[in-house]
Amino acid sequence: MKRIITLTTDFGLTDGFVGTMKGVILGINPDVTIVDITHDIAPQNVEQGAFLFANAARYFPADAIHVVVVDPGVGSARRTIAAQEGETIFVAPDNGVLSSVLRPSSSVVHLNNPAYWLPRVSNTFHGRDIFAPVAAHLSLGVPLEALGARIDDWVQLLGGEAAFRAGDEIAGRIVHIDRFGNIITNIGEELLAGMHRARLVVFIGGRAVRGVRQSYSDVAPGELVALISSSWRLEVALREGSAAQVLGARVGDVVSVALDRE
Amino acid sequence: MKRIITLTTDFGLTDGFVGTMKGVILGINPDVTIVDITHDIAPQNVEQGAFLFANAARYFPADAIHVVVVDPGVGSARRTIAAQEGETIFVAPDNGVLSSVLRPSSSVVHLNNPAYWLPRVSNTFHGRDIFAPVAAHLSLGVPLEALGARIDDWVQLLGGEAAFRAGDEIAGRIVHIDRFGNIITNIGEELLAGMHRARLVVFIGGRAVRGVRQSYSDVAPGELVALISSSWRLEVALREGSAAQVLGARVGDVVSVALDRE
Amino acid sequence: MKRIITLTTDFGLTDGFVGTMKGVILGINPDVTIVDITHDIAPQNVEQGAFLFANAARYFPADAIHVVVVDPGVGSARRTIAAQEGETIFVAPDNGVLSSVLRPSSSVVHLNNPAYWLPRVSNTFHGRDIFAPVAAHLSLGVPLEALGARIDDWVQLLGGEAAFRAGDEIAGRIVHIDRFGNIITNIGEELLAGMHRARLVVFIGGRAVRGVRQSYSDVAPGELVALISSSWRLEVALREGSAAQVLGARVGDVVSVALDRE
Repeated sequence: MKRIITLTTDFGLTDGFVGTMKGVILGINPDVTIVDITHDIAPQNVEQGAFLFANAARYFPADAIHVVVVDPGVGSARRTIAAQEGETIFVAPDNGVLSSVLRPSSSVVHLNNPAYWLPRVSNTFHGRDIFAPVAAHLSLGVPLEALGARIDDWVQLLGGEAAFRAGDEIAGRIVHIDRFGNIITNIGEELLAGMHRARLVVFIGGRAVRGVRQSYSDVAPGELVALISSSWRLEVALREGSAAQVLGARVGDVVSVALDRE
Repeated sequence: MKRIITLTTDFGLTDGFVGTMKGVILGINPDVTIVDITHDIAPQNVEQGAFLFANAARYFPADAIHVVVVDPGVGSARRTIAAQEGETIFVAPDNGVLSSVLRPSSSVVHLNNPAYWLPRVSNTFHGRDIFAPVAAHLSLGVPLEALGARIDDWVQLLGGEAAFRAGDEIAGRIVHIDRFGNIITNIGEELLAGMHRARLVVFIGGRAVRGVRQSYSDVAPGELVALISSSWRLEVALREGSAAQVLGARVGDVVSVALDRE
Repeated sequence: MKRIITLTTDFGLTDGFVGTMKGVILGINPDVTIVDITHDIAPQNVEQGAFLFANAARYFPADAIHVVVVDPGVGSARRTIAAQEGETIFVAPDNGVLSSVLRPSSSVVHLNNPAYWLPRVSNTFHGRDIFAPVAAHLSLGVPLEALGARIDDWVQLLGGEAAFRAGDEIAGRIVHIDRFGNIITNIGEELLAGMHRARLVVFIGGRAVRGVRQSYSDVAPGELVALISSSWRLEVALREGSAAQVLGARVGDVVSVALDRE
């Protein structure tokens, strides 16, 4: 059965780092299917990597192997890990980049068996020398336990405050701005349960956006619209334009929601 | 037989949208070959998407399945379609992005059978929730008719005025500027039939470029050259530089050609 | 056995050129695995193409077929070539872009047999019309000799001065700056043989960086660090930042190394 290996990195596509990792993987398992999730994570931005990776990973087959390399600590004493949660396998530095996909019950090993690495390991490119070969061996059926010692103190990101609701008011933050300038918050749709969406007001960038709508087309071109994003969170967009630009919005900014009582 | 699914979108490569679509496709048909045409269509620019897609698509095997998602109307009442022309299948929003590949005789269905979509459909990412799964099911042999009702009133872009020739004069427009700054016009080579190419003058950006040549190397480095593009249209380039930059050229600008009588 | 074809170009990913090449390849050999090394070589920068390609290519299986298209002379009298070195095959314009992978003993042919090209060949896109179909036919087992006449006067880039060592001093240049702003020199680690690395001083951009360390984490965040790169050359980096930006460094700048006698 053909296995999938996905790659998520902050390597960009210019320097050939990603192609090199694919060469290493295919040299070990020529029959694997490699899929790029993104390589444009902002350099060394572990939080962004964790967020974008988790959004995409849940749409892959359960037995996929996901490699995530956003690794500011490469070459330091930080550990490298492989983890299994259900049928899904993850390979990454132990810096919290897997925080939103691992559970307390996940099996995690410290990659300390060099038998599954390239013969020569650099101090600056573990994506090529450790993560790629380990993922390829996993795709051939090597068991997790062969790769290193079981650990249970892997790094978990706290992830900032979660969004929260108090009565008819919700407070959250901007967690991502996408290519279209759409603003994604950490306010999951479940927080809106039981509220009358048409009467909600979203406060963002000094503006009040009235109503949580169904789709971009519920407002006129050039107007702001609040709706539920494809990752099932509160989103603020500008129809046929960039909400982030118009609002001067940045990741981390506060967003609040209240019920309009007028 | 291994089928090809191509992807053309305005999603960019940063946010993981494209990787997510691939996860959905491979979850339905693990044996398909997925090829990216481009994901850098300017956001919501249907005309550019139609142009770049059509140039590339004709170089794929006839039985390829092409998914084109430039979709400013996502979530609105705009329809989604699948179409067959000869052996080739297309999946896209019904907004004209397939204008240059469909014919009046093409079979087109409105994608209104949710049995071939993801179980939960967002209002902002039909690439993942409708187009990807529909393409994957088509690659497994699901017939077009199963996906929805036949329609014949699909949207056709007018595509601006075509270029035209009157005697020894031709009028056209710039339709694309590529990465190298090469300027591609809508003047197909067939419009030059029977004209003495060495005696033609191309008027563009306030300059007169004399002669339609064979290749970039027919002029010195730094000089402008008119020639036939790889998409078989009149092109104006600057050898070892950017013609668009030097001429201040933009998509939509007028280009004319005349016979030099001197 | 599944063959790999890699692609390295300066085409970028926006215009659909790369997708088009893949369509041509898969139309000839649907069972090949295509891997992108990079398509972001600076337009027509043959030296950069040669450098980034060679770094990646050595991590691919020995029987890979590598296509490298950085081709400022497309359409001119410059030749196109295919070459074999060991089991590895290369396809490229004859402009020196293969300089670091070919040896005097390599078998090289001039691609002058149009039977293996597309039926119609443009003067501006040989990646699609010549290189892609030739690589696909090679992946099906067509022998090199069938593609054209043997030559031995293929173009070899001189590659600027090599780095050199005189006693305890080394002189070299910057050959690449990567996405992270890390500065890669042409000073191979073998030039440091027998030197006491902790006592070396690297002079670059008017600054003296003391010691050649093991990894980025050997200095504090924000500090410059010299170490060995993943391509096994002397590198200067800034921990959690861009050394190139801080130093105003550019490709071609001089870098020197001396032994600190204090």
